[in-house]
Amino acid sequence: MGIVPLQFSTNSTEPLYAQLFRHIKSQIINEEIEYGSKLPPIRTFAKELGVNNITVINAYKQLETSGYITSKQGSGFYVSKKVSKEQPFFIPPEEAHNFINFASASPDPSIFPTQTFKEYIVEAIDRDKGFAFGYQETNGFMPLRKTLTEFLHNTYSIHTEAHLIQIVSGAQQGLDIIAKSILHSGDTVITENPTYNGAVEVFRSRGCRIVPVHLDRDGINLLELEKKVRISKPKLLYIMPNYQNPTTCCYSLETMDRLLDLAERYDFFILEEDPMLELSYGHELPTTLKSLDTKDRVIYLKSFSKLLMPGLRMGFMIMPKVLLEGFTKAKQNTDISASGLIQRALELYFVNNKWDEHIHYIREIYRGRYEYMLVALEKLKDYDVTFEHPKGGLCFWLRLPPHIAAEKLYYTCRSKGLLILPSPIFFSHLDHNKNSYIRLSFATCTIDEIYKGCEILKDCIASFSK
Amino acid sequence: MGIVPLQFSTNSTEPLYAQLFRHIKSQIINEEIEYGSKLPPIRTFAKELGVNNITVINAYKQLETSGYITSKQGSGFYVSKKVSKEQPFFIPPEEAHNFINFASASPDPSIFPTQTFKEYIVEAIDRDKGFAFGYQETNGFMPLRKTLTEFLHNTYSIHTEAHLIQIVSGAQQGLDIIAKSILHSGDTVITENPTYNGAVEVFRSRGCRIVPVHLDRDGINLLELEKKVRISKPKLLYIMPNYQNPTTCCYSLETMDRLLDLAERYDFFILEEDPMLELSYGHELPTTLKSLDTKDRVIYLKSFSKLLMPGLRMGFMIMPKVLLEGFTKAKQNTDISASGLIQRALELYFVNNKWDEHIHYIREIYRGRYEYMLVALEKLKDYDVTFEHPKGGLCFWLRLPPHIAAEKLYYTCRSKGLLILPSPIFFSHLDHNKNSYIRLSFATCTIDEIYKGCEILKDCIASFSK
Repeated sequence: MGIVPLQFSTNSTEPLYAQLFRHIKSQIINEEIEYGSKLPPIRTFAKELGVNNITVINAYKQLETSGYITSKQGSGFYVSKKVSKEQPFFIPPEEAHNFINFASASPDPSIFPTQTFKEYIVEAIDRDKGFAFGYQETNGFMPLRKTLTEFLHNTYSIHTEAHLIQIVSGAQQGLDIIAKSILHSGDTVITENPTYNGAVEVFRSRGCRIVPVHLDRDGINLLELEKKVRISKPKLLYIMPNYQNPTTCCYSLETMDRLLDLAERYDFFILEEDPMLELSYGHELPTTLKSLDTKDRVIYLKSFSKLLMPGLRMGFMIMPKVLLEGFTKAKQNTDISASGLIQRALELYFVNNKWDEHIHYIREIYRGRYEYMLVALEKLKDYDVTFEHPKGGLCFWLRLPPHIAAEKLYYTCRSKGLLILPSPIFFSHLDHNKNSYIRLSFATCTIDEIYKGCEILKDCIASFSK
Repeated sequence: MGIVPLQFSTNSTEPLYAQLFRHIKSQIINEEIEYGSKLPPIRTFAKELGVNNITVINAYKQLETSGYITSKQGSGFYVSKKVSKEQPFFIPPEEAHNFINFASASPDPSIFPTQTFKEYIVEAIDRDKGFAFGYQETNGFMPLRKTLTEFLHNTYSIHTEAHLIQIVSGAQQGLDIIAKSILHSGDTVITENPTYNGAVEVFRSRGCRIVPVHLDRDGINLLELEKKVRISKPKLLYIMPNYQNPTTCCYSLETMDRLLDLAERYDFFILEEDPMLELSYGHELPTTLKSLDTKDRVIYLKSFSKLLMPGLRMGFMIMPKVLLEGFTKAKQNTDISASGLIQRALELYFVNNKWDEHIHYIREIYRGRYEYMLVALEKLKDYDVTFEHPKGGLCFWLRLPPHIAAEKLYYTCRSKGLLILPSPIFFSHLDHNKNSYIRLSFATCTIDEIYKGCEILKDCIASFSK
């Protein structure tokens, strides 16, 4: 099987290389091109298609960075090993409960404040009747936005105004609205490497070029960042400065300061995603980048999914002033507004100080699991597994010894009843370390499961050393 | 003030004409170019910018179809009269209650089934506890999708399968997901003219070209459509075949059949939006295009906003099989899933037959308002106002006599305490009829308000004839 001929769409403004990329990609996914087979040489193929060599080169490059093909020096381009149509390493929820689940960092439904929330939902309906179910202001229910403004001021030292808050239907929607507002096809977005692939997908679907930059212990590598900023002129830098997903890294204050300088000097925005600042197991709350942002360069995005309940589909953004109009229009075009009912219940939840109570409660539960898992994982150091102690969050990030590939370990663990998350889904496909880590979460596990899971993991790792 | 110099972004794949369009548009909106001022002649400007004439021509064309500039034969291009930054004719909700409101077609909060819905929300939380607030399957809560499949089969004669249903957070999100899944920059979308501008905005924001086609009494003009399909090779045709917004037109069965043929012959999809089929004041339910769709060419999109409550932010789509994978991925990237809690309550609502009860109840209320308004509006025929009798829905669409411009009538009515919706926001900016109609809705009005509003309208229309 070879590549099916492509009809370029001439009335499309989608660049030819992008059309070619999509064409070949879909054939690889649909298994119309065999795995391992060689793609046509650049010049021959360009001639056949009637396009410039550079069009084919760019398409191949994008296929390579997306992991669909690999280049072999002096020999050409080959279709990579089997790419799954589904998310790799995805276990359907109905099967996941047969496993000890270190893979999912979703919060534990057994600790959701469902009864309290139910009361506030009922209170909101009884108070506002039909208006709780009517169309809402695009950027959100104003009393909630005012309450969040106060909360940000008091808890995070972030000083903002209610009209700059936009309520979004979860952080994923926030990413989508940001992308729609400021990113166009061909724009560059710089991301951490490794990073959350759900964000990368959104940027890619806008036709953006993704430029990954490595993480050090103190945050993103500033030298590499500045070099890449100079060359690629990004519109946006996407980061998670506290308990980064997946590495659990926290940015130092110095790194934060220098990032803000760079954003101002090279004229780009920084998207700070903060899913769980409050889950700090140290003595104080870490610092958000937004609280240091005097030049209005930071878009702050916070979800209530990890700390409260993901099914609320609630989160919020702080919008830089110059982006307010575009963000509002994008939200309007996206879904008109977030649910008025849930916004009202959430407002009552905050006003009645339930948020602080809940955070205190879950932090103690998660801290217990965290400390237990930390001790259990220490034993893995005997097998050359290394990791930093996270200062908070729901995960550990383990570096495996060179002879163990994360994907192989995944399958071994799964056969023993344990789910873990291997690192390739977080890394740029070109990174030579992409198969060297695993992410483990204690979010949905009991102490007993943590014990058993760590024992299984230890045995599986040991089995590779024999 | 002239046009500020433009730095073309050379590392962007956004076409130069599109960059130029955005550049000039933003200056017009921000009033950096004076209204009425002449734009530079094409050749001079192209030379100055160092681009081809065609780049400037294309940018000017797009500015013209979007209503920002007008061309004067033999003289050049001029910035149109003041364009508002806000939606034109928009009255903030907090002021709208000072008026009799014929402009809003939002349903009336006083007839929302809030108490019933509250009970089902409580029941869903008590039954499913934390799981009602956990992450959901991307395409929706399966029991709801199964229930909707049965409902579609029994009520609409639409035969589909639960795995082809996607629950969306309102129809606006449906539009967004469809656009993300199948439309790329430069693709053509054909729309009805006039049509719902919230859909046009979504298609435009994907960089699509909008080709409007006129509506006749029986639906879209098929001759004009086929001609434009041949030339523009659309990916999508967006229509509302029953109680079209704003014209209230219903498609004939013959038009529907021929549309399906065209879609198959010229290889495009049809997006059928159906916000209120059930609000039929005749003896039977009209036919949906989807129920006739044997070739899987129709994407059916239904919102629960108009018939139930807009604040639920709930709707669903029937996905053609070939689009299932792309739609699922787009939903995942958009907001992961719709609210699990509201989906559960909605499922209970359907299973307990509350939907049918509610539809019966609101149809009788709206029918009363409809019939009353119909009689009141008949009097306007003395002033050369004409209109068709809608077979259902929440609106009337009135054609004004040639000496009355809809926008002027809007301002006159507003000064007398009545809000109406003038037609320009529904029309392509090039249509010479764009200022000849008004849309009137009885959705939120009492009989008394309908009486008073129609009297005000009559007086205002009469005042133009003096």
